[in-house]
Amino acid sequence: MSGSLYIVSAPSGAGKTSLVNKLIEQDSHIMVSVSTTTRPQRAGEQDGINYHFSSVEGFQEKIEHGDFLEYAEVFGNYYGTSKSAVESQLKAGKDVILEIDWQGAQQIRKLMPQATSIFILPPSLEELHRRLNNRGTDSAEIIDGRMNEAVNEMSHYHEYDFIVINYHFEKALEELHSIFKAGRLTQKVQSQNHQNLINGLLGK
Amino acid sequence: MSGSLYIVSAPSGAGKTSLVNKLIEQDSHIMVSVSTTTRPQRAGEQDGINYHFSSVEGFQEKIEHGDFLEYAEVFGNYYGTSKSAVESQLKAGKDVILEIDWQGAQQIRKLMPQATSIFILPPSLEELHRRLNNRGTDSAEIIDGRMNEAVNEMSHYHEYDFIVINYHFEKALEELHSIFKAGRLTQKVQSQNHQNLINGLLGK
Repeated sequence: MSGSLYIVSAPSGAGKTSLVNKLIEQDSHIMVSVSTTTRPQRAGEQDGINYHFSSVEGFQEKIEHGDFLEYAEVFGNYYGTSKSAVESQLKAGKDVILEIDWQGAQQIRKLMPQATSIFILPPSLEELHRRLNNRGTDSAEIIDGRMNEAVNEMSHYHEYDFIVINYHFEKALEELHSIFKAGRLTQKVQSQNHQNLINGLLGK
Repeated sequence: MSGSLYIVSAPSGAGKTSLVNKLIEQDSHIMVSVSTTTRPQRAGEQDGINYHFSSVEGFQEKIEHGDFLEYAEVFGNYYGTSKSAVESQLKAGKDVILEIDWQGAQQIRKLMPQATSIFILPPSLEELHRRLNNRGTDSAEIIDGRMNEAVNEMSHYHEYDFIVINYHFEKALEELHSIFKAGRLTQKVQSQNHQNLINGLLGK
């Protein structure tokens, strides 16, 4: 059995994390890749579950050895996706999700062009504003900054293979799931996973 | 709204017709293309429902005018898929299924490379033999001929985008449906069908 690699991107407020969490709860064949980071471990976080925590030196060594499918520096901390970790999960037959932004997605497509990429959109700017303002405690300036960042992320939607619009959560979840179900039915995946059955049918 | 074109092929006995009939019963967005034929109308058959019935001269005129996406002569009768009929159904937002063999599929791929093709396989040669012998009234020679034809058809499975193995009918039906559901989520289809929503999100 062999799994497939999926990229899932979305602006903040589109509901990506809730959708992905529910998806992996429903389907044991799907898992989320655990990122490696140099940011300090927070209370309640577990190494290997929330992140693979690494020193800056360790991270930089891995960069030099080409161990990352993609990485980025955000607010002075490194975040990256370990190639070997992803590959061993794929070989174990899991569909692996990378939750990354459009820049990470571009890096992945170069290294693993067979990856399937999915972009999740909110139903409208008004709804996105409402979701980003949900706590009601942030200033208009901060919300505006988030909105600008979201529009910038969304401007890359056309680089993706699939688009899911998160209008109703349950509908979006079902749509997202159908992409993974169909992904297991591609000629390439089916030929790998049912080689004996197919050879038998062809009298080989 | 704009629909997509699907090719569904299978050897006799794989359960294609039952699966496709159940699929269009479940999902009103999907329909089967009605073929044009020169064979005589049988009792109980309706023109425009079972087939578009045509004279040989009418059929040959349409061939000359390039009105067929694919056609074939079988036992002295012509069978073909009318381009204009398929295109008007696609424009009406329907996903249109062509139930054709591997030769028709090759013709369609040349004319409409955006078509998605699906091959349905039986779970084993033994099960296929059992299904082809279901009535129990045919000679071993006739059954063998059908088996050879089926193996020949199946040898083209690798030309298709998706493979569905019909082991359990309900599972195969769900798998088949997921291909159509995911097909509506491709970036191209979503961009066409939700242009206003996407423009709104990008502030255009």
